Amino acid sequence: MVVDPRIDRLQRIGAASPGVIALGGGLPAAELFPRAALARAFLSVVGAPGAEALQYGWPEGTPGLRAWIAARLRARGAEVSADDVIVTSGAQQALAITASCLLEAGSAVAVDPETYPVALDLFRARGARAVAGVAGVVPNADEVACHYVMPGVGNPRGRAIDAAARAALLATGRPIVADEAYVELRFDGTVPRALLADARDRVWSVGTFSKVLCPGLRLGWLVPPPHALSCALRMKHESDLQAGSLPQALLEELLARDDFDARLARARRFYAKRADALTSALRAELPGFRIDEPEGGFAVWVEAPEESADEDDTRFLAAATAAGVSFDPGRMFRPQERPRPLAFRVCFSAAPIRDLREGARRLGAAWRSFTRREKHAHREQRDAEHAG
Amino acid sequence: MVVDPRIDRLQRIGAASPGVIALGGGLPAAELFPRAALARAFLSVVGAPGAEALQYGWPEGTPGLRAWIAARLRARGAEVSADDVIVTSGAQQALAITASCLLEAGSAVAVDPETYPVALDLFRARGARAVAGVAGVVPNADEVACHYVMPGVGNPRGRAIDAAARAALLATGRPIVADEAYVELRFDGTVPRALLADARDRVWSVGTFSKVLCPGLRLGWLVPPPHALSCALRMKHESDLQAGSLPQALLEELLARDDFDARLARARRFYAKRADALTSALRAELPGFRIDEPEGGFAVWVEAPEESADEDDTRFLAAATAAGVSFDPGRMFRPQERPRPLAFRVCFSAAPIRDLREGARRLGAAWRSFTRREKHAHREQRDAEHAG
Repeated sequence: MVVDPRIDRLQRIGAASPGVIALGGGLPAAELFPRAALARAFLSVVGAPGAEALQYGWPEGTPGLRAWIAARLRARGAEVSADDVIVTSGAQQALAITASCLLEAGSAVAVDPETYPVALDLFRARGARAVAGVAGVVPNADEVACHYVMPGVGNPRGRAIDAAARAALLATGRPIVADEAYVELRFDGTVPRALLADARDRVWSVGTFSKVLCPGLRLGWLVPPPHALSCALRMKHESDLQAGSLPQALLEELLARDDFDARLARARRFYAKRADALTSALRAELPGFRIDEPEGGFAVWVEAPEESADEDDTRFLAAATAAGVSFDPGRMFRPQERPRPLAFRVCFSAAPIRDLREGARRLGAAWRSFTRREKHAHREQRDAEHAG
Repeated sequence: MVVDPRIDRLQRIGAASPGVIALGGGLPAAELFPRAALARAFLSVVGAPGAEALQYGWPEGTPGLRAWIAARLRARGAEVSADDVIVTSGAQQALAITASCLLEAGSAVAVDPETYPVALDLFRARGARAVAGVAGVVPNADEVACHYVMPGVGNPRGRAIDAAARAALLATGRPIVADEAYVELRFDGTVPRALLADARDRVWSVGTFSKVLCPGLRLGWLVPPPHALSCALRMKHESDLQAGSLPQALLEELLARDDFDARLARARRFYAKRADALTSALRAELPGFRIDEPEGGFAVWVEAPEESADEDDTRFLAAATAAGVSFDPGRMFRPQERPRPLAFRVCFSAAPIRDLREGARRLGAAWRSFTRREKHAHREQRDAEHAG
């Protein structure tokens, strides 16, 4: 992440070192990228007489893509037409536009105790505060401007909010930013009813093609509440005029010819297998850790046992990287200053199973020598204080 | 533009009606799009083993593209290395990032009396005020936060700022946002020394590939002052994580194999011919108008004679569209509430020469009947007021 220079530096070292098994970053598997379908789409759109794929377009996006997105949301119970959809430069831009329309300096945003790091960065940059609650519901928080949630598959835990939390969230009556980046990647193939379907007038629905197709197109979408559509469109226009015409044309052409649901089903099976391999390996290598089975998404969230809860996750990342494995330190996902227990996110999405097993083994070894060293350092510090 | 719904509606009607010759919008000529070169680049990058073109990348952009951009700026006298460059989602995003780092609500931005409309929209959206000056220099404006200028080829006038204005601008000592969207498209082939070269510590240099290659890639760049690089990078990351990996990979591959300067030379000759045809046709059809020859870019700026200076440009756009020709009304380009004289921008870039001539003819006819009608309406109103 750009925000914490220590973490940013370590992540770049991890990514650039061939000897390091990189289990951070939330990257999709390159094996699933639709290369052949994109190549076919490319030849068709760039050869087209008008060359619209290479020209400027309107801020809201191409009609075909907006219609496709609206139809997917309608299938999940929401009343959405193509005219309600803004095609964005990825889900992140949908969040940034939402923040521009919803937040003021000093606003509080209620979030899960662990959530998507760049959303937290964004809220901070806009002068807003993120406050943690359970499933996005914060007791006694009158000043909360909105809730930010990932309903179907949370990040980093890879789990859905349950029916009670969903009901409580809707009952707050406040605006809800529903980030559905991973929603179609539940391993059991179920896709929950859209929050949009139950509060059309105050849900900002955010989605992306980066997780299920590929990030390289940099395309996502925003469906704002109807009363906020013109604000969102204005913000989109001022941010970057429009999402890329070429990526939009490629995607529209690909979706018209592709069996998207078959592709999704394949991706779910593929990631479920990797999730299973990583979860088992981590449980074997990190005894005493809390490791919940993810229901979908790209990652496993692990929390250190109580006796190590106050160790520093970034120091551990440095030690692990030196031992040949990297991950995303837990503090990136948490709104508090000094979060505990020590935790981290380990991604299974982009590494083959043998790397996941070897990565877990290295993590376990790095953890054992890290805690030994830290205990030693703490003891020395205590002795020095007693002597002083 | 999204901001004025009347103008937005008229522009969409103009663009969607095959009977209307669309001379607004500032679109590049589709004839110049590098289709074959892009197709070659596509097959090469999508076939590459790592598939990096389809994966996530870093917020600052790909190393190769940053190096290419830095080298072009160094050739124009600026001390810039690849590490100083941020690849953006078009020039507009470079402006939005700059505004996020430079402006606060209430800030004043000094601009030319006519300038790029979406920059004005952006400043307004951030709660800043645009104040007009000559060549960006505003006398007695102590509260001005920065200057926004288009040094080599202005938009909409298509002319450079002269040496005296350049010196005065530098002498203010204030931050300068140098929007060089069209700078390589001067018809005489000269490219001015970069403002960056003379005030590296306070110039924000903005550029784009949209005008000289094609808008469909949605790629531009920002070189902020060194002290502001980390702010700009943070804003880029929060806005949309990164510019599209696929467009970046395509562009890098294209630039490595293409003779970019030969392409530029061809584009300059191509646009010079269209500029000449449109300027002559407009002078013949709109006698009494002030019509300056553009030195580069995509458009001609025309100002109505004194006796019609107070007419409404948007009402004239409605009349012209009904008569089969459209353009960009002058108010879009001006910071004031009630600008005068009535003026408009007519683009020669995207229409063949026979359409430029026919478009000018329709403009002339529309103008004559518009002013006749308006005079009649004014007279009737006056008579009614006298009678009342």
